[in-house]
Amino acid sequence: MTRLAALLLTLVLAAPAVAEPSYRATGDLGLIVERASGSLLVIDQSERAAIGRIEGLGDLSHASLVYSPDEHFAFVFGRDGALTKVDILSREIAGRVIQAGNSIGGAISDDGRLVAVANYEPGGVRVFDADTLEMVADIPTGSKTIGLVDIPGRRFVFSLWDAGETWIADLSSEEPRITRIAGIGKNPYDALVTGDGRTYIAGLFGEDGLTALDLWDDQPAPRRILPEYGRGQEDLPVYKMPHLEGWALAGDQFVLPAVGQHEVLWVDAGTLDEAGRTRTHGQPVFAMARPGGRHVWVNFAPPFNDTLQVIDTRTHAVIHQMTPGPAVLHMEFTARGTEVWVSVRDANRVDIYDTATFEKLGEIAAQSPSGIFFTARAHRMGL
Amino acid sequence: MTRLAALLLTLVLAAPAVAEPSYRATGDLGLIVERASGSLLVIDQSERAAIGRIEGLGDLSHASLVYSPDEHFAFVFGRDGALTKVDILSREIAGRVIQAGNSIGGAISDDGRLVAVANYEPGGVRVFDADTLEMVADIPTGSKTIGLVDIPGRRFVFSLWDAGETWIADLSSEEPRITRIAGIGKNPYDALVTGDGRTYIAGLFGEDGLTALDLWDDQPAPRRILPEYGRGQEDLPVYKMPHLEGWALAGDQFVLPAVGQHEVLWVDAGTLDEAGRTRTHGQPVFAMARPGGRHVWVNFAPPFNDTLQVIDTRTHAVIHQMTPGPAVLHMEFTARGTEVWVSVRDANRVDIYDTATFEKLGEIAAQSPSGIFFTARAHRMGL
Repeated sequence: MTRLAALLLTLVLAAPAVAEPSYRATGDLGLIVERASGSLLVIDQSERAAIGRIEGLGDLSHASLVYSPDEHFAFVFGRDGALTKVDILSREIAGRVIQAGNSIGGAISDDGRLVAVANYEPGGVRVFDADTLEMVADIPTGSKTIGLVDIPGRRFVFSLWDAGETWIADLSSEEPRITRIAGIGKNPYDALVTGDGRTYIAGLFGEDGLTALDLWDDQPAPRRILPEYGRGQEDLPVYKMPHLEGWALAGDQFVLPAVGQHEVLWVDAGTLDEAGRTRTHGQPVFAMARPGGRHVWVNFAPPFNDTLQVIDTRTHAVIHQMTPGPAVLHMEFTARGTEVWVSVRDANRVDIYDTATFEKLGEIAAQSPSGIFFTARAHRMGL
Repeated sequence: MTRLAALLLTLVLAAPAVAEPSYRATGDLGLIVERASGSLLVIDQSERAAIGRIEGLGDLSHASLVYSPDEHFAFVFGRDGALTKVDILSREIAGRVIQAGNSIGGAISDDGRLVAVANYEPGGVRVFDADTLEMVADIPTGSKTIGLVDIPGRRFVFSLWDAGETWIADLSSEEPRITRIAGIGKNPYDALVTGDGRTYIAGLFGEDGLTALDLWDDQPAPRRILPEYGRGQEDLPVYKMPHLEGWALAGDQFVLPAVGQHEVLWVDAGTLDEAGRTRTHGQPVFAMARPGGRHVWVNFAPPFNDTLQVIDTRTHAVIHQMTPGPAVLHMEFTARGTEVWVSVRDANRVDIYDTATFEKLGEIAAQSPSGIFFTARAHRMGL
């Protein structure tokens, strides 16, 4: 072999290992949580197809994830306390730490530099560098910690189940600065923040009503809202309480699942007063507004969890009902609302529907799919 | 040279031309219009750096652009009637058509399949396949056509300067279906749609007030709003009228530049009634809400166009003023509002500011920069 051949062979072997499928834009990608197998299915929304799988993520029951601002990495929060960073271009695990014994969700700071995780055991919030996954702050709360969200200014908000408090952690300087707000309620069990990062609403276990905070105030004061919410439902176990992440802003109203009832509630977004109810097929789990807010899509708890209903936000009437199949767990809209992707867990399938015609556009095989997350989430607040 | 060497040389030469910088995610990229040189600067928002330049785009005065849903391609609307498709990964022109003699902006359909352009000469809207740039619909209007926006359902809305009408073109089936709405006003000169795709508002030249349409109605009826808007300013030339794209939704208010005054107006988003005014440093050009709506940033017409002001949306008070330099033409916020990028045209520079501290974080050299467009726009409606 000549020296030229040797040189060329070296060049060939040294060529960067850029796999063909990785040369692509990332604005229309997504991940589907495959709970039983501890894997993530990488999907291409434009192609309506799976393009890869990332394995080895451990216990993904109730897992959620957030994206880096460049839509290159996802941070996956496992129930087992693992925080895993995955590269959606190379489809590899880029880092993984077991950061607690039992965790309940996380968030990424507005600037994309910090990832925070809320933990039950030990109770508190831990904050990690998004590049290295090194821990940069440990905020013990002495309580199970729930309802963690990001708000502007490199801040996170979360609530303390045992202490009935909400804390705001400001990580814009070296040492975290904590603002503690007492009097939220006996046992806040979940919370949400509105899409503008302004209003934080905590659900209360074993008490009627919800508690709202205006985060634009320097020292937000708890305000009890919707006094009828959950009335007479004190005996439900906590896992039967509605997930507040399902709340939807539709025009000038919020929609939320009633507690233990076959109803969704409409709430005036300005006053936070109740503005009506719609009878539904079952007990709602998620009530999600299609982007733009014209319709709300609702799925249900067992035994009605094979069904979806679509509600018109102006008339509050159910305008469509469909039966995708057994265990409809989650819905995700494409960023501009043209399609909805639906996990049908016990059919091992994700269905794709046209939101205008309700026509089925396609389906993707997946192993016990639960959460669906499109990369467009990278650009939204309060997830 | 041996056959092996020849073979290896072939392999080296045939290796896919994947330039190193192209193996990257696209969620944090952007384009800056360099008007004088007919070029686009490709920027990486996370690195706060320019990473390439795309040349040969012709007349880019008042050019705007939209992104494909995967954040891979941009469609650039030149004033000279050119529609150019650029690949931001390879940084090449992927297609280009001269589609009219004089055009005024465009939009991409909610499903990303169609690109529409509004034209002065010949007056009307032309619609192109986003993949091939083949023309798929020609909608002559017999009028200069302005205020083109996308709304849900593969539809576009635009207005006719000469006829005082607004048209809705539905391209969800083979033949475009047109809904014509008369009585908008004598000369609509620009328009906007709210971020949820529901309310279309047209500015009127030589008449007081504006005209609003509720696009959720089957046959939207024109409604005249803000009767004081522009009163007494009938003598201004049309190019002195405010750009309505500058309107910002901040919480439950809109902000808009006054006509010919050193003021911004606050408008109740529910009633569309005036809700206050703030005196500003000069005549406002763009009044843009930081994502989340806590502050509004305003730039000004000459001779005050070296300055920016920041207004608090709760108090309506100016809380900060800075002087980036000569000819501050455009501002673009990062998707979650942490930074604002500012074109300082006559300093050949784009400045980057922290929106919380107002500190300058960096700058990028650019040739007479005007519009700045981050890829996160791919996921928003009504641009």
